[in-house]
This record gives sequence, structure tokens and C-alpha cells, in this order.
Amino acid sequence: MSKGFTLWFTGLSGSGKSTLAERMLAEFRERRLKVEILDGDVIRTNLSKGLGFSKEDRDTNIRRVGFVADLLTRNEVICICACISPYRSIRDENRALIGRFVEVWTKCPIEVCEQRDVKGLYAKARAGALKGFTGIDDPYEEPAAAEVVCETDRESVDESVAKIFAAIRRLGYL
Amino acid sequence: MSKGFTLWFTGLSGSGKSTLAERMLAEFRERRLKVEILDGDVIRTNLSKGLGFSKEDRDTNIRRVGFVADLLTRNEVICICACISPYRSIRDENRALIGRFVEVWTKCPIEVCEQRDVKGLYAKARAGALKGFTGIDDPYEEPAAAEVVCETDRESVDESVAKIFAAIRRLGYL
Repeated sequence: MSKGFTLWFTGLSGSGKSTLAERMLAEFRERRLKVEILDGDVIRTNLSKGLGFSKEDRDTNIRRVGFVADLLTRNEVICICACISPYRSIRDENRALIGRFVEVWTKCPIEVCEQRDVKGLYAKARAGALKGFTGIDDPYEEPAAAEVVCETDRESVDESVAKIFAAIRRLGYL
Repeated sequence: MSKGFTLWFTGLSGSGKSTLAERMLAEFRERRLKVEILDGDVIRTNLSKGLGFSKEDRDTNIRRVGFVADLLTRNEVICICACISPYRSIRDENRALIGRFVEVWTKCPIEVCEQRDVKGLYAKARAGALKGFTGIDDPYEEPAAAEVVCETDRESVDESVAKIFAAIRRLGYL
């Protein structure tokens, strides 16, 4: 039983947000905790249709994810969010709204993300076929005080998961 | 304790959706049940910014409300939705998605809604200042099999509330 909290993954495309989010989802489910995930696919399909990649649209999108995460968190559900969420002020707005907020920064040099390029997006962005790509021609504001920093180019998924659990327990959310 | 369900109000502007939704919210809170409300204001502010009143945008909006209602319902929260939701097929889509779905039709002749005109919207629509207004120059598809029909021009709020509670109990959701 958990009182509910939001586990908010932020980081560049390819930095490992989804991998860790999916792993945490499985961990929570195994413990029979109430958990929902709002990741890129879920958000694009169900929440952000019609929004683009301008700063204003990105902010609207992230606020919307925060709104839903808050609804779940305050009803004792763990909500895992995995979105680039490049702007610090909007992440902090969600932190203030939600309260029980664990920010996980998947920190990874852009060169490594670009090398992974799982979805081929960096190649497209470099070719100019994608405009406003975070880290290339759009900013990523690094977290100043994330609860967890996972250096995904240096640590294993298991190590990252252990760090996340340690933070959640330290905060008394589990 | 409730297993969670969605109480979905549909009807013309001015037909009494918000009045009944607010009353039910208070009733559930009094019983210390987990409950959230997604009404016009909440939706416009937090979910539907950027959407207009075309059929496509209305459908996207109602699907989005259904997505959030489903997240809450499946986590044992009562979710009250109050939106015109003029198209039957999308309401039924949400019904199929959510499962535990109680449709409440606030049935009221448009002449009465227009006479009430609490927000002055009918006057604007008649003057042509609002285009695509449901009931005036945009369709409202009446429910074929709503769990509850509240004839808000003929019955008191208390009578409507009693009918809604009866339906919820009959369905075994409370």
C-alpha cells in the first residue's frame, strides 16, 4: 500500500527514461501497488493530440501530464511520468502542484543518446527533418535538485532502479 | 468504499449537468468516498486547451475526458464528468472503455435551457456570435439507453439525486 506519489522521469530523448519507467512499472506491479504510467506514447495518443513543439505547446503538454498525475497521486496511486520535459519551471510547477514528487533525471551525454538513437530521431534532427529537437536546436534545462540522478551511460539499469527505490523509501513514500 | 465508477452527465447547455454534478460531488464527499470531478471549467483549463468546436475537436475532447475518467475509475475513484458530449458514438466509446459507466441524461427542452441561459450563451448563439452551438446550429444526439434520465424541467434536484443514487445502487457500484 502506498499513499501515492509521482515518479517523474526527465531527460533527453534516448537517455533511458522509458527503459527505467517500464522497469519501475513492473517493480510496482509485482508489489501489487496501484500504478499508472504516462509515457510518450500514452500522452501523444490520449492527451496531447493537436499540440506541437513550440515552448508554449510543450508547456501545455507537460502541465496536462501534471494535472493527470496529480489526480492519480492524490487518490493514492503511483503515477510514473516519462517525458523529456525540458523546461525546469514547468517541472517545478508540477512539483508544487503534486507535492509528493520524485524527480528522476536520466543524465546521459547527448553524444551517447545520439549514438543509441533508438528511434532514429537524432538522425532526422541532424538532417533538419525534425525542427525544435531537444538538445539539438531546442534547450534542455538540467534539473537543479532532482531527487535521483541516474547516469545511464555509466550505471546498469539495476543500479538505477536501486537508487530510485532508495530515494522513494528515504522520502517515506513506500 | 466504492470500487470506482464514472458518473457521466450529458445534456444541453443549461440542462442542469453542473448543478447535479456538484450536488453528487458533495454527496460522495459527505460519505468520504474518493471522488473527482471533470466538468467544463476543469476540462477547458487542464485538458482541452487548443481544441475548438468542430466535430473532430469535440470528439478528441470527450475521448480525452474518457481517458482520464478511466484512469481514475480503474483505481477505485468515482469520477464525475459533466460535459455536453453531444455525440452518442463517443459517449458509447467511453462506456466501452470504462466499463463501470453510469450515463445520466439531463433531459430538458431547449426552450427551457434557453430561457434559463445562465451563462448568456444562447443569446450569443442566436445573435450569431457563437458558431456551432449544440442545439442551435450543432446537433445533440439524445442517449438511447442512459442509466438515468433526469427531466430537470419537471423534477427537483432532490428527486434527480435520488434517481441517480437508485441507479448506482441497482448497478452495485455503491
